[in-house]
Amino acid sequence: MTQVTRPTWVEGAAGSLFDIDNLPYGVFTHDDEPPRVGVRIGDQVVDLAPVAASEMLEIAHVFEEPSLNPLLALGRPAWSAIRTWLTALLTDETERDLVGPSLVPLAEVAMRMPFEVADYVDFYCSLDHASNVGRIFRPDDEPLKPNWRHLPAGYHGRAGTVVVSGTGVRRPSGQSKAPGAAGPGYGPSSRLDMEAELGFVVGAPSELGSRVGVDAFADHVFGVTLLNDWSARDIQAWEYVPLGPFLGKSFATSVAGWVTPLDALAAAHVDLPGQDPEPLDYLRVGPGAGFDIDLEVVLNGETVSRPPYASMYWSPAQMLAHLTVNGASLRTGDLFGSGTISGPAPEQRGSLLELSWGGTEPFTVAGQERTFLQDGDTVTLRATAPGTGGGRIGLGEVTGTVLPG
Amino acid sequence: MTQVTRPTWVEGAAGSLFDIDNLPYGVFTHDDEPPRVGVRIGDQVVDLAPVAASEMLEIAHVFEEPSLNPLLALGRPAWSAIRTWLTALLTDETERDLVGPSLVPLAEVAMRMPFEVADYVDFYCSLDHASNVGRIFRPDDEPLKPNWRHLPAGYHGRAGTVVVSGTGVRRPSGQSKAPGAAGPGYGPSSRLDMEAELGFVVGAPSELGSRVGVDAFADHVFGVTLLNDWSARDIQAWEYVPLGPFLGKSFATSVAGWVTPLDALAAAHVDLPGQDPEPLDYLRVGPGAGFDIDLEVVLNGETVSRPPYASMYWSPAQMLAHLTVNGASLRTGDLFGSGTISGPAPEQRGSLLELSWGGTEPFTVAGQERTFLQDGDTVTLRATAPGTGGGRIGLGEVTGTVLPG
Repeated sequence: MTQVTRPTWVEGAAGSLFDIDNLPYGVFTHDDEPPRVGVRIGDQVVDLAPVAASEMLEIAHVFEEPSLNPLLALGRPAWSAIRTWLTALLTDETERDLVGPSLVPLAEVAMRMPFEVADYVDFYCSLDHASNVGRIFRPDDEPLKPNWRHLPAGYHGRAGTVVVSGTGVRRPSGQSKAPGAAGPGYGPSSRLDMEAELGFVVGAPSELGSRVGVDAFADHVFGVTLLNDWSARDIQAWEYVPLGPFLGKSFATSVAGWVTPLDALAAAHVDLPGQDPEPLDYLRVGPGAGFDIDLEVVLNGETVSRPPYASMYWSPAQMLAHLTVNGASLRTGDLFGSGTISGPAPEQRGSLLELSWGGTEPFTVAGQERTFLQDGDTVTLRATAPGTGGGRIGLGEVTGTVLPG
Repeated sequence: MTQVTRPTWVEGAAGSLFDIDNLPYGVFTHDDEPPRVGVRIGDQVVDLAPVAASEMLEIAHVFEEPSLNPLLALGRPAWSAIRTWLTALLTDETERDLVGPSLVPLAEVAMRMPFEVADYVDFYCSLDHASNVGRIFRPDDEPLKPNWRHLPAGYHGRAGTVVVSGTGVRRPSGQSKAPGAAGPGYGPSSRLDMEAELGFVVGAPSELGSRVGVDAFADHVFGVTLLNDWSARDIQAWEYVPLGPFLGKSFATSVAGWVTPLDALAAAHVDLPGQDPEPLDYLRVGPGAGFDIDLEVVLNGETVSRPPYASMYWSPAQMLAHLTVNGASLRTGDLFGSGTISGPAPEQRGSLLELSWGGTEPFTVAGQERTFLQDGDTVTLRATAPGTGGGRIGLGEVTGTVLPG
């Protein structure tokens, strides 16, 4: 899958995690200028609006917007054409005079929420995560529900509380019921958790009443972002029967400031680990439906887990086909999460619930015994994947600090 | 609560369900003109944009929009001021020359989706409905889950598939598992249902990390619409554990073309039937927290049920307080549904699941035995409530016809 591309002329980018084969998109502000679309290369942001305007690109206006949505709405052929144009600009030395003045150091910009979320759906696609949660929440029951191996289970989350990396996350309050208590009590969550996920960002919409088959995934999905599905386990445990997670999740979901285009992950395709039983026709995928993306969960600067996305049972194309099999339409800005990514090994678990086994097995961070999140804790997710240039590319990190409730 | 208001000069409106004390808002199109905001009086629509412009209202621009959202965003003081202004216009004979040319017969307009849905949450607030569903879906278990009497249970639905009254509803396909079958199958739902609900429309937003107490309900909620939460029971039964309803609901939710302002329901307040145990502090409400709204479920022209909203266990102010108790923010256009409205009597059940007791007790419509919905069936919800003028007001109806899958 290695593509022959000339090296970029942008200093410091070649060989980095944000080399010419990456080129994620985000929305940035610089000084007091209005937010607009940028592409990251190395430690620089290309301010696309002036470059596209000076080249008189027909779609230049999409880069002047405070969200990626107009770009997302253009669809796959336009996304590919823009990527080809950008690659040429950033590798052709003769374009340096044109583009150079529009490079802004990453350290000087603030990243905004990159897209307006239309609907947000969260799936539950890790066999290891679902099994662990089942064992922790329902120790006397089969860990997996009977439907789990037949469909990628999912639910709708709150689109309005998806926030960009760096946003503080206030500890939620709510109802929970202590084991053995007569009734529920009210107060700040004492089991605040994180979940390491990938989020898939839909660009091209679909019609109500139509379906998006597994083969149409790349026509609709623009790219991928790291996602932290903050979770209040005590609130969730009390509320989730029978309507599923609600307030235990809806207070905040963090996404990275950068969306990595699917094109940048062309060399990261891997086969799924295997599905047994074979899924129904509309969920059948061929080789290479998975993604080999390595995540890292960092708590207060210390790596506490390394979840491998390649271990996921259900692929993103299957999630999308399932999401639309009933005729539900897609809108530009729809976001769907993979669910917590946990690998089979204990050090690959993507939530503190699992890392501390429901709070019963504390783990050590910076010499302290830890279970769930404390006020002031900072959680950062990072990830890398094979790039088309033969090295690795980085996904934009997502970070958040817990504020007191 | 009867208010002394002069009668309206609009012919045919006085004494109707859409008299001067109602004045619901919607978005309409007439001929080939762009969609804009109108108010219904009698069988006429007041085209508000030209009237407000000629009166040089500062907020006239909100009526030129293709959705109510800019009006919703203005907040309670502006909503009240506009209602006062409209009431004067439509009762003062001397305004007839100004307003008359902007009256459009209802029969000549098409109603559009009245607002852009931000997040859609559906609650589960009827004790009778929740008990019935529990008995039907889990016959060997307690009908109510332990949390039901402690919190208004809810979940997020799909905002992008909320459609306006009159939109055809395509029968969804998906996975379901027949009783006793070895595994799931795929096909069109054979247990397509409807649910009679009220939907509450949020106007004024709230900050992430803040809470909207029960007393702030009217500051944030603009009004009410009838809502049909179409449900595929076979898909729902197979998928809903443990993450709640998803594809069994997400194919379509219908709302009326008219949103009734809370002000029009000032005479409809009633006490809740009673809550035992007393809810936690943040959910405590005083007298008059309920609404005396009588619904009617009409299947192919025949009334099959008369659900009384006054029988609901949890009030809308409690739903909103619960929805935000964890700090989740509100956005203009947020919609929350009451959940199916079922009264204690069999003829007050708000879903076919209940009316046919899970399909086991067919009922008769137009001489035919019926359980779930057939292709071509038309479901219409209607409702009336006490108006402030001493008579009754009507909510705009919501109707939809089932299209083959």
